[in-house]
Amino acid sequence: MTPLWQREPVGVVGLGLIGGSLGLDLMAAGAQVRALVHRPATAERARERGLASAVSTDAAVLEGCGLVVLALPLDRLLDPDPALLAALPVGAVITDVGSVKGPVLRRWRELLAAGGGPGATRFVASHPMAGTARAGVEAGEPGLFRGRPWVATPEAGTDTEALQAVRELAEALGARWLCCDAEAHDRAVALISHLPVLVGAALVQAAAAGGGETAAGAELVRALASSGFADTTRVGGGNPELGMLMACANRAALLEALDHYRQSLASLEAMVAAEEWSGLQQSLARSQALRPDFL
Amino acid sequence: MTPLWQREPVGVVGLGLIGGSLGLDLMAAGAQVRALVHRPATAERARERGLASAVSTDAAVLEGCGLVVLALPLDRLLDPDPALLAALPVGAVITDVGSVKGPVLRRWRELLAAGGGPGATRFVASHPMAGTARAGVEAGEPGLFRGRPWVATPEAGTDTEALQAVRELAEALGARWLCCDAEAHDRAVALISHLPVLVGAALVQAAAAGGGETAAGAELVRALASSGFADTTRVGGGNPELGMLMACANRAALLEALDHYRQSLASLEAMVAAEEWSGLQQSLARSQALRPDFL
Repeated sequence: MTPLWQREPVGVVGLGLIGGSLGLDLMAAGAQVRALVHRPATAERARERGLASAVSTDAAVLEGCGLVVLALPLDRLLDPDPALLAALPVGAVITDVGSVKGPVLRRWRELLAAGGGPGATRFVASHPMAGTARAGVEAGEPGLFRGRPWVATPEAGTDTEALQAVRELAEALGARWLCCDAEAHDRAVALISHLPVLVGAALVQAAAAGGGETAAGAELVRALASSGFADTTRVGGGNPELGMLMACANRAALLEALDHYRQSLASLEAMVAAEEWSGLQQSLARSQALRPDFL
Repeated sequence: MTPLWQREPVGVVGLGLIGGSLGLDLMAAGAQVRALVHRPATAERARERGLASAVSTDAAVLEGCGLVVLALPLDRLLDPDPALLAALPVGAVITDVGSVKGPVLRRWRELLAAGGGPGATRFVASHPMAGTARAGVEAGEPGLFRGRPWVATPEAGTDTEALQAVRELAEALGARWLCCDAEAHDRAVALISHLPVLVGAALVQAAAAGGGETAAGAELVRALASSGFADTTRVGGGNPELGMLMACANRAALLEALDHYRQSLASLEAMVAAEEWSGLQQSLARSQALRPDFL
């Protein structure tokens, strides 16, 4: 059977990096894309860039969509505009792209259970794991999802047709489809995505504090910093609002990840303090051996 | 006046990444390069690669050199072969390339003070801050030092002619010359080079430990790890022996850096725990603003 995204118009709510990239790929694939944005200037620029067939600041633009992708930042996803909720078509499949799944799932289950709209079973929580450092209406780019994981976190009650419709959309964009439960997803992204933000941010602050005791020391630290320092701190020096929103939405899993991290670091530090050099070398060798699993 | 490296043969002890790259650039610049290596197979391969005009496993190859670069790993630099010491020409300028300067300076001051050789005032401790992930006789590459810092840590007694000779060598290879005292150097590299190794190594181990509580969890963490995780852990997954040697030689400064780091991370963690979201965002914004200073 023809995939839903080919049979019926696809709604995209928000045209930032994820929504804009989604629009470009779907337009290129021949879909009809109807986009809802917040500001008139964004709508105008989105039309110029050809991110969707129709762009509006009026939620009525979503009328007739068989599938709606909520490409909103976490805070707006967790506290959506009532006009958006009211405009979601009855029976439509709804999915989101939030980087934390437990809170989104709980919130939208509750919002959609109220009835009159698509219904809670038609909501498929998902997370396309693609990104660049860019944001906003200029950020969308073709092929962003190709080869990247697209994780869905269905529940027992999730409609299998709805799940299949989102899977077909993801696979049409070249993403690798994965399913897991929301808690496992949130624990995993805490470890490999949210923890590195804090780890890198703390490293920048430590270098500034440690080098900054004298002006000459601060200048020296800056002069000597190399590509290793730049790489280790790249995500730690990223968008502070995004970092905060992820930490806020995934607090419990992040605190658990920090606990694992503190233990790993304390163990390395203890070996340095105790001058256990062969133990330190063995531990570093373990990190070297484990790392390729994550690449 | 013509630089020393042009007037007299340059000795290079060790032809790994640094020594081999030095040999290639010096040969290209028309210098006469005499290299001392440990193993006959290395000597043969170095001759094939054209890393030096003469390569030998016999320290006598250094005879007649006006300038000798000790391009040895830290452990061998701190515990040098007596045959090497005996072969250093009287009056020659000696420099090293070790990534930690205090211990090297103390050790070589003592070794050369014994007399009969170049003399302690002719020793210039230095650190060309260039590197790749490669090691060994195949690793040397042209242009490795171009645009990179080359830090010298002279003492009050260091011969100014000797210092000038090393500076001319470094600048001939396109490096940016910097001088500072050895302690300031060691504190700086602890923060921006040695600390990131432990920070990244601990992150890999935390991801393995946190994800590994169930087989499915471990697989998920691996499937979702992105370029952000890869970047943050690149130096942490590097050569364990090098990491250990640097930690060992720079133990005090590294423990001090870890102390700064633990405080920075604890402050971020406390804000997550206390749900101080605007404070967290401000702190992440501070890291974002500070980071470009180190690039």
